[in-house]
Amino acid sequence: MKNLVNRLKKLTKDVGLLEHAVATLSWDQETYMPPKAIGEKGEQLALLQGILHDKITSPDIGKILDSLGANDNNPTGKSDSLSSTDSAYIKETFRQYKIQTRLSKKLVTDLALETSLSQAAWIEARKKSDYSIFKPHLNKVLELTKQKAESIGYNKTPYDALLDEFEPWTSTKEVDDIFKSTQPWLTEFIGKIKNAKKIDDSFLLKDFDISKQEVFGRKVLQDMGYSYDRGRLDISAHPFTTTLGRDDVRLTTRYQKDFFKTGLFGIIHECGHGLYELGFGENVKGNLLASGTSLGIHESQSRTWENVIGRSYSFWKYYYPELQKYFPENLENISLDNFYKGINKVEPSLIRVEADEVTYNLHIILRFQLEQELISGSLSVKDLPEAWNLKTKDFFGITPDNDANGVLQDIHWPMGAFGYFPTYALGNLYSAQFTAKMNKEIDVEKSLENGKLISILDWLRENIHKYGASKTASELALDITGEKLNPEYFKKYLENKYTQIYEI
Amino acid sequence: MKNLVNRLKKLTKDVGLLEHAVATLSWDQETYMPPKAIGEKGEQLALLQGILHDKITSPDIGKILDSLGANDNNPTGKSDSLSSTDSAYIKETFRQYKIQTRLSKKLVTDLALETSLSQAAWIEARKKSDYSIFKPHLNKVLELTKQKAESIGYNKTPYDALLDEFEPWTSTKEVDDIFKSTQPWLTEFIGKIKNAKKIDDSFLLKDFDISKQEVFGRKVLQDMGYSYDRGRLDISAHPFTTTLGRDDVRLTTRYQKDFFKTGLFGIIHECGHGLYELGFGENVKGNLLASGTSLGIHESQSRTWENVIGRSYSFWKYYYPELQKYFPENLENISLDNFYKGINKVEPSLIRVEADEVTYNLHIILRFQLEQELISGSLSVKDLPEAWNLKTKDFFGITPDNDANGVLQDIHWPMGAFGYFPTYALGNLYSAQFTAKMNKEIDVEKSLENGKLISILDWLRENIHKYGASKTASELALDITGEKLNPEYFKKYLENKYTQIYEI
Repeated sequence: MKNLVNRLKKLTKDVGLLEHAVATLSWDQETYMPPKAIGEKGEQLALLQGILHDKITSPDIGKILDSLGANDNNPTGKSDSLSSTDSAYIKETFRQYKIQTRLSKKLVTDLALETSLSQAAWIEARKKSDYSIFKPHLNKVLELTKQKAESIGYNKTPYDALLDEFEPWTSTKEVDDIFKSTQPWLTEFIGKIKNAKKIDDSFLLKDFDISKQEVFGRKVLQDMGYSYDRGRLDISAHPFTTTLGRDDVRLTTRYQKDFFKTGLFGIIHECGHGLYELGFGENVKGNLLASGTSLGIHESQSRTWENVIGRSYSFWKYYYPELQKYFPENLENISLDNFYKGINKVEPSLIRVEADEVTYNLHIILRFQLEQELISGSLSVKDLPEAWNLKTKDFFGITPDNDANGVLQDIHWPMGAFGYFPTYALGNLYSAQFTAKMNKEIDVEKSLENGKLISILDWLRENIHKYGASKTASELALDITGEKLNPEYFKKYLENKYTQIYEI
Repeated sequence: MKNLVNRLKKLTKDVGLLEHAVATLSWDQETYMPPKAIGEKGEQLALLQGILHDKITSPDIGKILDSLGANDNNPTGKSDSLSSTDSAYIKETFRQYKIQTRLSKKLVTDLALETSLSQAAWIEARKKSDYSIFKPHLNKVLELTKQKAESIGYNKTPYDALLDEFEPWTSTKEVDDIFKSTQPWLTEFIGKIKNAKKIDDSFLLKDFDISKQEVFGRKVLQDMGYSYDRGRLDISAHPFTTTLGRDDVRLTTRYQKDFFKTGLFGIIHECGHGLYELGFGENVKGNLLASGTSLGIHESQSRTWENVIGRSYSFWKYYYPELQKYFPENLENISLDNFYKGINKVEPSLIRVEADEVTYNLHIILRFQLEQELISGSLSVKDLPEAWNLKTKDFFGITPDNDANGVLQDIHWPMGAFGYFPTYALGNLYSAQFTAKMNKEIDVEKSLENGKLISILDWLRENIHKYGASKTASELALDITGEKLNPEYFKKYLENKYTQIYEI
């Protein structure tokens, strides 16, 4: 048994190395590549992706998985005699092997082509705020996505197969139940905030010197435990985190005059992802388990750092005097209390990526409901904008002024990433549940007030990071908190924080 | 016939793409990689190199080469009906296929291991100036290198097989004859210069502001026709040029207070390599012929720009007033004439990489003779330092004060690159021969005096670059100048230039 697992590990070792090589080429493309190099870069990436596909679908892997007895009903195989990490390793290998072998070459090629065309059309459609340009492409992408779900297979609904790509081992029903129990509460809570006294955050929108932004931002990253021995911070059009090696996890950002939203909180967010990737333990390093266990758990890490830590009062009790010294012209007359309120202002808005942490999950629930209807066929692509606008009105009390600020705002559907959105909201929920436990085990407030961010990292490493993908999202929640994902923690977190901020 | 060639092109297309992917990872390693990422980067590179090896040695390629009738005696095969570019393509594919298939996996692995150990030992040996640390490693590397030559096969001498890796289709005897006819002349000419009035170049060694160095250097690169749309200039410990795609050729440099040697002339040199790689024509682009045809021809391009152009009086007639404006503190009291003499000072010295263009080739001839003796066995590794010192005394009239400044100065032997050195000298010789012709066809002096470097590039592109590896070095020389490599051009070039500078 153990022998088979070792042979499997040998066969899949190259998969991780190739993924990192691909990441290196992609990172280069987004950061330092000269503009005219783009054409061949696409060919190089396609070639490496093809080699990667061949590696993970190698018949030798299939045979060993068979011998181990891994199948849809029992993805860990007959692994009673193995360690839980080895069982998890079989399960993850089976999952990847299954997805890659069940998609025909034609479907993969068609999807690559159509989503590429659809993204180009989407860019134009969004620019002109003209849904009709995007509509025929969305129809095609949706059709291929449905074929993809059918090819992979599912238990209850095609959406299960799609969700599994981003949030493995979590069913549509589980997510739906959780979202259904949070939505009315959120709507009601936002209503209360709406009636409270408005917060003034105009000082955040002033000009902040970009070179000082960088120095301050890098200082916070280092305090968080991010080391430039194992990573970098560069500039790209859209901020991202990417793993180029087990000791090479890089972040990017972009600097704008307005420091906070995309700048400081953006790099704290990315660093949260990066620290997860840098924290995998010795017994998962260098194999398929050296990966975030789900996008929801990944997002829980970025959101913990960005919101629970980065937007907390204790954090700024330590950092605000220093921040004021960096930017006296903008902040010397703003008190810590008003600064804290400013960075936590709640306001129903049209755009997901600009949403605060209270309204954010509603944006996700809206997309989750609509994409399920699209996949099931109960909503047609033609009727999508109207459905979008109605739901926005229903959830937020406002209606998009145009489709660019509504149904056309996100890149996920144009790129065929149905099933991705819910992971953002799950991240917020897991984050609240994990940090509730962390607060019981260590004195978070005191650590933050003393600038000891490293205590937070230590806890996250010990409880979450080191396991990589050797525990599923649910197993993590169960092991850390004694229960599966429970949205009550998130409600409680918001309630505690915002009743105080808004004095409601 | 044409069908077979097209099938061959399809099979080898991935080779170029993979080489560029490897170059991307290597470039990253030398420029932006965080230090701790080095371990896995090595694994990623080894994996890609292995895949590359599999691609170029694929049995399908072997079969087609067979069908085309390509073999050692007739590497272009039965290709009468094909274009000369297609014939050249078959020949180059056969050459690479042959080398890669004839080296056993064991030999390749052993060489990789031993040269890696030997480089580490060499670094220590050079630091301590202690040849005994390096000696046992050189013995092993030499032994494996001999095995390599035997595996590949050769016409006359094992050194032919080694030379062919860097200077394809050129025999040891050809190089030896050419070198033998230049060496006495060089020694005599250097003797004359020694007796002439000394040149003062102390002003070149002052501190030059690094940020201004960069601005001035980048301006010269752009004037040379290097575009940041298809390349970059970054910083690395050792300057290099590398090709990451057909529209992506990057340079590196390092900035030191002393601007000229490693700085300005270094980037002009690298840019010369880069412009060659960027100039391949449409009918060689994207296949195995999109490559420099030999290292000698590659070096002819860098040396033309660095020495023939960059150290010419006409070049500085245009640029010197501007250079003086950049660095008035160092240069305002130095006349153009004295500056020109300073950057062309000739002085026998111990270190190859610091040598001027007159003494440079002697450094190469010395190494070429010694490495032939090492390969043939007429010189033992034990006796190498003594032989080195004797020859240095013989060629330059000086003796190394220690082995670090003598036999231990170069990385080529530690890395197993026997046969590489002569290409540097061949580059100088080809450069003189090509530029003699260029001077007949365009008014080089006038172009330089007007800062029109682009006329030089146009000529080089049209006569050399666009052919890539579709003409061998000899064919290029023949087609451009009507004769094979002839060292008289180089002597004439030096004579004209330096009798004037040294008034001899």
